[in-house]
Amino acid sequence: MAERAALEELVRLQGEHVRGLKQQKASAEQIEEEVAKLLKLKAQLGPDEGKQKFVLKTPKETLTGKYGEDSKLIYDLKDQGGELLSLRYDLTVPFARYLAMNKLTNIKRYHIAKVYRRDNPAMTRGRYREFYQCDFDIAGQFDPMIPDAECLKIICELLSSLQIGDFLVKVNDRRILDGMFAVCGVPDSKFRTICSSVDKLDKVSWEEVKNEMVEEKGLAPEVADRIGDYVQQHGGVSLVEQLLQDPKLSQSKQALEGLGDLNLLFEYLTLFGIADKISFDLSLARGLDYYTGVIYEAVLLQTPVQPGEETLGVGSVAAGGRYDGLVGMFDPKGRKVPCVGLSIGVERIFSIVEQRLEALEEKVRTTETQVLVASAQKKLLEERLKLIAELWDAGIKAELLYKKNPKLLNQLQYCEEAGIPLVAIIGEQELKDGVIKLRSVASREEVDVRREDLVEEIKRRTSQPLLN
Amino acid sequence: MAERAALEELVRLQGEHVRGLKQQKASAEQIEEEVAKLLKLKAQLGPDEGKQKFVLKTPKETLTGKYGEDSKLIYDLKDQGGELLSLRYDLTVPFARYLAMNKLTNIKRYHIAKVYRRDNPAMTRGRYREFYQCDFDIAGQFDPMIPDAECLKIICELLSSLQIGDFLVKVNDRRILDGMFAVCGVPDSKFRTICSSVDKLDKVSWEEVKNEMVEEKGLAPEVADRIGDYVQQHGGVSLVEQLLQDPKLSQSKQALEGLGDLNLLFEYLTLFGIADKISFDLSLARGLDYYTGVIYEAVLLQTPVQPGEETLGVGSVAAGGRYDGLVGMFDPKGRKVPCVGLSIGVERIFSIVEQRLEALEEKVRTTETQVLVASAQKKLLEERLKLIAELWDAGIKAELLYKKNPKLLNQLQYCEEAGIPLVAIIGEQELKDGVIKLRSVASREEVDVRREDLVEEIKRRTSQPLLN
Repeated sequence: MAERAALEELVRLQGEHVRGLKQQKASAEQIEEEVAKLLKLKAQLGPDEGKQKFVLKTPKETLTGKYGEDSKLIYDLKDQGGELLSLRYDLTVPFARYLAMNKLTNIKRYHIAKVYRRDNPAMTRGRYREFYQCDFDIAGQFDPMIPDAECLKIICELLSSLQIGDFLVKVNDRRILDGMFAVCGVPDSKFRTICSSVDKLDKVSWEEVKNEMVEEKGLAPEVADRIGDYVQQHGGVSLVEQLLQDPKLSQSKQALEGLGDLNLLFEYLTLFGIADKISFDLSLARGLDYYTGVIYEAVLLQTPVQPGEETLGVGSVAAGGRYDGLVGMFDPKGRKVPCVGLSIGVERIFSIVEQRLEALEEKVRTTETQVLVASAQKKLLEERLKLIAELWDAGIKAELLYKKNPKLLNQLQYCEEAGIPLVAIIGEQELKDGVIKLRSVASREEVDVRREDLVEEIKRRTSQPLLN
Repeated sequence: MAERAALEELVRLQGEHVRGLKQQKASAEQIEEEVAKLLKLKAQLGPDEGKQKFVLKTPKETLTGKYGEDSKLIYDLKDQGGELLSLRYDLTVPFARYLAMNKLTNIKRYHIAKVYRRDNPAMTRGRYREFYQCDFDIAGQFDPMIPDAECLKIICELLSSLQIGDFLVKVNDRRILDGMFAVCGVPDSKFRTICSSVDKLDKVSWEEVKNEMVEEKGLAPEVADRIGDYVQQHGGVSLVEQLLQDPKLSQSKQALEGLGDLNLLFEYLTLFGIADKISFDLSLARGLDYYTGVIYEAVLLQTPVQPGEETLGVGSVAAGGRYDGLVGMFDPKGRKVPCVGLSIGVERIFSIVEQRLEALEEKVRTTETQVLVASAQKKLLEERLKLIAELWDAGIKAELLYKKNPKLLNQLQYCEEAGIPLVAIIGEQELKDGVIKLRSVASREEVDVRREDLVEEIKRRTSQPLLN
């Protein structure tokens, strides 16, 4: 039973209890006492959480004891007020909270950690309810668009170096969207909800989006059509310049600010040599409320981008934008720290890399082990331990089977399964000759290597990346 | 108010409510209805959590909405039963739970993640309530002491390569402790609590420990003295052999098993070349309940270990042991998976490294940035952006100030503060001459480098570790 529900039930029962006492003609002080309790409970109940001020503190905990006397060290929800807990939804809000709590006004950092979403999982596409994000953010009061351009440069660097195919980074600005909604005649109260309808244009047709706007969200058809004329446009810096001259849109101060910044941004992106990867896309809206300026989303393309040619995105792998108001929401005095950042969906990218490797029929190694130390006969555990210690001390990644007398066949099979490329085989004869039999698992070739040369030979043979 | 406390209060009030109804001669069905409610509440209350069966599920969550329409994706504690949550106390219990949930019987892995303890923080000594642990565990049914020996080898490798001074790994076995308690006459019920008294011997004198055993824990003084004769002994494999002959201790089958395994362990540790780092210490007990066999704890020493000489430990930096029963506690059918592992206190080691660097007056760099791209005059932002893109594309770690026209002095000061070793200065003259002025922040020397040679020159100058 949830805490608030329990409290509400308590208030109801305490109320009945008080009424009961009155009917029973209980003593005045007893009734007073129980009324005081009732009021205390109601005070605890407070207003709706939604409206409650967000309190900054580390979550408290409780654990089913498995730690003997150390259990007293465990945070206990019961003892300590039992406030509601939450799992990270993303890394951006915690980052903003961290800046506000520590009064940081200037920081650049990356953060790789788990976040949690009550979404519908799709394992094959790398969508989970618990998954990793990699965030990069630049916080501080700086000259316009310089950190924003760096964020876009980083996205392009990342996706290029991952070699997961061609990609495109859609860019837009919340101020352009809001200005566009205003000049199209969308009521202020509907900006956010219309915004999230527009955001669906990468998945569904304009007709469906318009239908949602008009039927579900009560927008006038002609207003929706005006929006449609804008949000179906995308292009490069030339589109920015064209819209700066747009008679309707140029009436919005907000839109002009956004377009002016995008103009500057494209200038910097050209200097960074990535302008060709960027598409100004008026349909990009991004769901989250906290963005205040430029927003962007990187999508992988199934066919190389040709100017003008339509290409089908296979989904977003990185996204972000500017959020200048979020830190202020956490600061008691509302002090603002402008921020811009990006998030990369780690599992999403992993699943794409894995699919690529499957297509190439490349085996993904789950271990970095370079060599298995094996024995050809029984009673050689001591020799295996001595050899593996030599290899470990020389910085070689080596394993052995944790058996006193493993069969050679089992040791070789283990290498096949684990993708270990080399086997260092000790035998009685080899010990006499002062050599180790080094076997390549792939080619099954075996050569005798003088023990003192073994480390160098293994290093020579395994000086290749993990995914080969 | 915590959930269980609320439930208990509910039961109390509902009871009074029922009594009230009876006094008021309420209708039979109304009373029955409220009695049913009372029983339902009592059922919910159940037995003490401690005894409740541990339910395996991902924690549910609630968040103060900052995500607009996406808020519906957030886990909500209220909606979904609001069971008690917990923060990880260590990485061992979650690892065991993971093995049981996924029916894994054979795995070797490391895991670096945060854990939470309601301990008294001591920042200078790297003790926090939220801190990182690095765990390594080997799970599976293997021949005795081979994985255990590997764990100890890894601890020695780690601490040696960290260069944080000389260290010692204390080793003992839970079965030896239990056997010792038995032959000394400790009642079975007192094993665990006496165990945790013994564990304090690294911090307090035997007299104090004995006093706790006798005064607080009601142990007979002569029993305590018998324990004292054992737990004040420590040494190498010779002590193991001596105790194998010990007339009292050798009567305990458990103790003999433990001593036999330690004998084998020392044999393997000798082959691994680390026997000199290991001390068999009968006072090592480890607080946690889940250990079933060999246990160990690595302590840093203030003076090098001399045979026989007493050395003062400056605290545990790594510890672990064998826990063969823990996975079975989580498995519905109680299937056991033997495990052995180790934990490293990351912040603890960091604080020691930092102290060492302070003592050596070495500045700890908080950034890996190799070079700051700076400008000597105004109106050179575009040139800075072009140059930094060249450096980034060549794999150089470069930064610039996010200002249109930063002062050269401010750019140089930033390098001093951030510990950036090099500055690449662009000036109008340099642009004409096709060179970049490369300045060493430490020596303040400046040389003109031909632009096409800049990347190589930076790589040449910064091919040294981070902490220099």
